[in-house]
Amino acid sequence: MKEIILNLIENGNYSEARKQLIEMNEVDIAQLLEELDKQKLLIIFRILPKELAAGVFSYIPYELQGYIIESITDKEIKSIIDELFLDDTIDFLEEMPSNIVKRVLQATDDETRKLINQFLKYPEDSAGSIMTIEYVDLKKEMTVKQALEHIKETGVDKETIDTCYVLDNNRILEGIISIRKLILSDESTLVGDIMETDPIYINTHDDHERIASLFKKYDLISMPVVDNERRLVGIVTIDDVVDIIDQENTEDFQKMAAMHPSDEEYLKTSPLTLARHRITWLLILMISATLTGNIIIRFNDVLQSVVVLASFIPMLMDTGGNSGSQSSTLIIRGLALGEIKTSDIFKVIWKEIQVSAIVGLFLSLLNFVRIYFLKKIDLNISLTVCITLFLTVMLAKIIGGVLPILAKKLKLDPAIMASPLITTIVDAAALTIYFSVATWILHI
Amino acid sequence: MKEIILNLIENGNYSEARKQLIEMNEVDIAQLLEELDKQKLLIIFRILPKELAAGVFSYIPYELQGYIIESITDKEIKSIIDELFLDDTIDFLEEMPSNIVKRVLQATDDETRKLINQFLKYPEDSAGSIMTIEYVDLKKEMTVKQALEHIKETGVDKETIDTCYVLDNNRILEGIISIRKLILSDESTLVGDIMETDPIYINTHDDHERIASLFKKYDLISMPVVDNERRLVGIVTIDDVVDIIDQENTEDFQKMAAMHPSDEEYLKTSPLTLARHRITWLLILMISATLTGNIIIRFNDVLQSVVVLASFIPMLMDTGGNSGSQSSTLIIRGLALGEIKTSDIFKVIWKEIQVSAIVGLFLSLLNFVRIYFLKKIDLNISLTVCITLFLTVMLAKIIGGVLPILAKKLKLDPAIMASPLITTIVDAAALTIYFSVATWILHI
Repeated sequence: MKEIILNLIENGNYSEARKQLIEMNEVDIAQLLEELDKQKLLIIFRILPKELAAGVFSYIPYELQGYIIESITDKEIKSIIDELFLDDTIDFLEEMPSNIVKRVLQATDDETRKLINQFLKYPEDSAGSIMTIEYVDLKKEMTVKQALEHIKETGVDKETIDTCYVLDNNRILEGIISIRKLILSDESTLVGDIMETDPIYINTHDDHERIASLFKKYDLISMPVVDNERRLVGIVTIDDVVDIIDQENTEDFQKMAAMHPSDEEYLKTSPLTLARHRITWLLILMISATLTGNIIIRFNDVLQSVVVLASFIPMLMDTGGNSGSQSSTLIIRGLALGEIKTSDIFKVIWKEIQVSAIVGLFLSLLNFVRIYFLKKIDLNISLTVCITLFLTVMLAKIIGGVLPILAKKLKLDPAIMASPLITTIVDAAALTIYFSVATWILHI
Repeated sequence: MKEIILNLIENGNYSEARKQLIEMNEVDIAQLLEELDKQKLLIIFRILPKELAAGVFSYIPYELQGYIIESITDKEIKSIIDELFLDDTIDFLEEMPSNIVKRVLQATDDETRKLINQFLKYPEDSAGSIMTIEYVDLKKEMTVKQALEHIKETGVDKETIDTCYVLDNNRILEGIISIRKLILSDESTLVGDIMETDPIYINTHDDHERIASLFKKYDLISMPVVDNERRLVGIVTIDDVVDIIDQENTEDFQKMAAMHPSDEEYLKTSPLTLARHRITWLLILMISATLTGNIIIRFNDVLQSVVVLASFIPMLMDTGGNSGSQSSTLIIRGLALGEIKTSDIFKVIWKEIQVSAIVGLFLSLLNFVRIYFLKKIDLNISLTVCITLFLTVMLAKIIGGVLPILAKKLKLDPAIMASPLITTIVDAAALTIYFSVATWILHI
């Protein structure tokens, strides 16, 4: 299919290419356009029917969106913006340089311009920034028949008509009703009698995390967004929420690997930006790690007198770090999904004590067999290593379980208490334990 | 609200409590039931209207579902199962012990039992395991008017009627049509003339990852599931896909922290199970870390002659590990979201070379100032540390960028190439570089 169309375009047979394209999904057309050179892209984009062109436009990368806007006439710009859903327009304008934003605003009519300007002002992380205004509104006094006729008249340009919003004369949200309910109800029933009067809604300034958690909790497809007077200003739809969920997860992954979170795609980000996102935490952790270095210096005598002790340092530090990271990852994730609350802190500690006792005992015994029986290392040294290992695993897992919860209690992001920071803390702890146990058992 | 109802239940005023409950969302009722003692829970559950009871049932924890099924009559079980959507029934039965499954199957009629048995057989990670059969099917030859009447007659029990499925006489999927399109079209139009003939669909055996990526790519709300003959067997809806996305992310987080992935909630998992999930990787990594220990022993002479070198080992190992983890995390996430492909390997290497050069240079220079000028450490030693730091960061970031892609090429899960494994590899590399540079610069 794709090859056929690319071939038709190659050979300049645009009318046949158009025929084929019209049959395709807008997402797939967008993907196909990305593969064309820019001149051909423009030709193809221009021969698409208006509505399809707008749909395709919302799915192509920002860079190509910018190129298209720069290359077409004001009239063409207006026709695209008129066809685009407002949330897609805002998405795209937020990524454009100011000269393109200006051009787009000049090309649109007064009303649209005012709306765009208003929507661009909502904070990036707010409900306002991802809502759209293409919804159907009904009145309580309408009969089902009137409501369906109203939908038929006004519904063509709406992003979703699966749920309709019942407003009073001041646009205050009184209820919602699904199209399903309307169709299944008797024609003469009043909308007010069958609507849901207590819908889940959010405020324009609620943040993305809250939106995602409400959608998940109530299995929603769309949700009304209201202002402080409970007037309906827009709706949020599930497709944008799915994007939010991915974004929030990506940010958590990045924070947990000690990076500044960013929703730019890796391959599209410049090396300098990537470096900037990584340097701060590396620096903080690097300096913290010198603490661990100082411990080694302080106990240098111990190391000098029993040289073999040094060889177990990496194993003890790594196992401690990994044990702690396992616990902190589970807790951070549980907090993010709402499965663990800060009030569960004692349950978490008790669970980690049990888990770490099992894990620590198992690893220590295995290690004892390995180094005392197989490697024939002195009994006291073997004991020193294995006792340290056990204590380190215990401590690491408790620290890993507690710190994310404490962070949340302190209104910090629990995700920073992940592997890198836990590892640094546990490293220092592991060495301190190691040298203390060594001094005690080996009488150094 | 919640307090009022809890109070009414406390005082035995069940009829008033029922009145209040009926006004509530089923998700919120489920949450309220969780807080009651088991006897009260049963009373409340039984006074709810049948349909609402089924809805609430699908939202309460498995443990309480099991308790309810054990405590009610066969007739009550049948009425719940009849009201439940099939996907919710399957979800719940998959978690129940066999005696409860048996009881449920005995209580249902032949047809339902056959369906349940068929659906329980689909592999856990397949489309079959999360699909439901409550959809509306139409015929091409129907007019829009007939179609809407058909929906009105049969649509009450359907999970979603927003999209209807057009089937031929052998139930082969010929197209889909949204309810919106039906409503907005002329009554006499034929469904076959306005349906979408090339819908996105999946096979019963396609896995969850593929489903999620199709939903995201095409912004879908529901998707048809067909068998090998393209016969429609069910549909998947977005609410289940959102759960899948969360689950897949949780599994990635766990794998990246060197744990066996599991979708059980942390607080509901026994310490022994948690320990089992964590021990395998800890063991593998612990034994790998002894390699690093051997390097220390091998270069013991160097450490003995320049004691201060030992104090920089933790800093070098940690910074290397963190640098590598940053890169591998970004690549693993990019691969999971489909933003990076295995064919991008050279782009990734080139990008990591640039990023690591910037980061490495910055950290090394800063370190040089810190240890040579501020700590007044010998020039050659300062140089040794900073050159090692630079090379380690470079190497770590390239390894971190490449290994996840190689894993994917080898059909392994890229997520295992995360922090713990990268750290172990980079630790050994960092020490080897360190001692090599030291031997070279300090002429030891």
